[in-house]
Amino acid sequence: MAKNTSVILASRPTGKASADNFIVRNEPIPELEEGQILIKTEYVSLDPTLRTWMNEVSYIKGNDLDRPMMCFSAGYVTQSRNEEIKEGTYVFGILRVQEYVVHTGAGLTICDTSKGPNSWHLGVLGMPGMTAYFGLLEKGKPQKGETVLVVGAAGIVGSTVGQIAKIKGCKVGGTAGTDEKCRFLIEECGFDFAINYKTEDVEQALIDHCPDGIDIVYDNVGGDLLDAAMTRLAQGARVTICGAISQYYKDKFVGPSNYMKIVSARGIINGIIVFDYIPRYPEAVEQLSQWLIVGQMKTKEHFIEGIENFPEGINMLYNGKNFGKLILKI
Amino acid sequence: MAKNTSVILASRPTGKASADNFIVRNEPIPELEEGQILIKTEYVSLDPTLRTWMNEVSYIKGNDLDRPMMCFSAGYVTQSRNEEIKEGTYVFGILRVQEYVVHTGAGLTICDTSKGPNSWHLGVLGMPGMTAYFGLLEKGKPQKGETVLVVGAAGIVGSTVGQIAKIKGCKVGGTAGTDEKCRFLIEECGFDFAINYKTEDVEQALIDHCPDGIDIVYDNVGGDLLDAAMTRLAQGARVTICGAISQYYKDKFVGPSNYMKIVSARGIINGIIVFDYIPRYPEAVEQLSQWLIVGQMKTKEHFIEGIENFPEGINMLYNGKNFGKLILKI
Repeated sequence: MAKNTSVILASRPTGKASADNFIVRNEPIPELEEGQILIKTEYVSLDPTLRTWMNEVSYIKGNDLDRPMMCFSAGYVTQSRNEEIKEGTYVFGILRVQEYVVHTGAGLTICDTSKGPNSWHLGVLGMPGMTAYFGLLEKGKPQKGETVLVVGAAGIVGSTVGQIAKIKGCKVGGTAGTDEKCRFLIEECGFDFAINYKTEDVEQALIDHCPDGIDIVYDNVGGDLLDAAMTRLAQGARVTICGAISQYYKDKFVGPSNYMKIVSARGIINGIIVFDYIPRYPEAVEQLSQWLIVGQMKTKEHFIEGIENFPEGINMLYNGKNFGKLILKI
Repeated sequence: MAKNTSVILASRPTGKASADNFIVRNEPIPELEEGQILIKTEYVSLDPTLRTWMNEVSYIKGNDLDRPMMCFSAGYVTQSRNEEIKEGTYVFGILRVQEYVVHTGAGLTICDTSKGPNSWHLGVLGMPGMTAYFGLLEKGKPQKGETVLVVGAAGIVGSTVGQIAKIKGCKVGGTAGTDEKCRFLIEECGFDFAINYKTEDVEQALIDHCPDGIDIVYDNVGGDLLDAAMTRLAQGARVTICGAISQYYKDKFVGPSNYMKIVSARGIINGIIVFDYIPRYPEAVEQLSQWLIVGQMKTKEHFIEGIENFPEGINMLYNGKNFGKLILKI
């Protein structure tokens, strides 16, 4: 009988996650019950939000202790006792960090593998792509000619947001943590400007690059970078909060110190919960894959291998060590 | 020649304002030029926002140094060389802390003194009443049956907001700093609950009073009370920022530490700038005065006297020493 390697959440991290918070366990693969499917995981998506799922409560109920860690992942259905999902189907959804996952199929997305490489269903055609697409279009609501600043732009969400905003006719800029990432944003993704927040004065750079202010801030980061972005809000600005990677490992978040700027800008702060758009994912996948096929959009992936490297992979996100969508290949 | 006593902003406060930041100066009353009016100030409104106008920049350009302090005030036109404003007219607007103010009349509101006592034009029928009315109705957008929490409820804005929300069929609660103020909210203003934030555990009280969460937070305060309010947001919540009295005297504002709650609540944070509604003030004055006349709404005033007591009056707001709309009688 094949062994099933799982990464178990053994304790809740207080700061950053570490390998100590997890146990790798080998167990037999259970027999399927009626209605269940068995998924052989191909790729686990390493996303900033996973850190919040390690808490008892976040925007969804956190992962139970002593259970395999929840994650976004994708793989082939290798056995099925569910008549709606055939063997050989490629599925994506909230699964577990396991080689084999037993599931009812409820809530999973059946991926159209003709739309691009399988791994794209964890990135540009998956949850991050959906977050970018619906967050920008439904919450930010970009209009042609507006200025969009993506805070945390070099990640998969940010780089996709920026490229969609360019396609919609906006002026687009972003912050990133290395010159190489800034070059990627301008040269590969077509951004109008990119700010290396580690070496540049972000507030001054925003004055230089955004003389008419910023209409949309799409924020993945929080903290000082969000503060800096909010100094430059244009009238009617939308600040769309997608994540707060600078804050997730802190005991207490630090809110935007200049939140009153939203008042003087007659703007709004809102946020994106991607799950709200599940019924509309196919529309976004179709659109994004078209843009990718014709070369109007690019995407970058960063693969690491080995299920036991899951905790290390999560921390790469927080250290900015990844360059492109970080994916764990099982 | 009558002397004109003025309160001059001599230096910018770094923390709370003090008498040292001001000079009281007596000067002759200037001769009017063509198009000007002379207003004899009757009442100066003491509002939290005045502290922000002492800064170089706030949501409007701050008060110039060595000039009489800007304020909201009201008084009679005693001389006029402006054919559109007759002598004897009662006007309200952004004037100066002076016994006599020379003005062009531009931007002033001509008060209908039949709507209530003159001092009401600084309170419930004036800027605070307008802030309450348009902030709640246009930004908070209350629906019948929703729960509204007013943070900083015992002031003129907060108590007016709560009473409008009650008239609109909402469940209404508020925070205040003394038991006497809490009783006023419940017994006089008809609030459903009031929380003394100095003696009660606000988060726990909100759990008890708002089992279905809070649909609208109308916030005058910021800081810990805003944080507590945001722990209980209902889905689709609106957090309407009116002011941040807990933060105005700090060098750097502290933002809402749990701002990500707006994301999980699928809500928005917005704010009210009352000046945007100047053309609609008459509609609000008419409606508020009707509610006041029939006794559906109550208002409370707190008078102090003497122009030289202006700085002390401002600080009463920050110390919570006032009870009712604080007005300086000249």
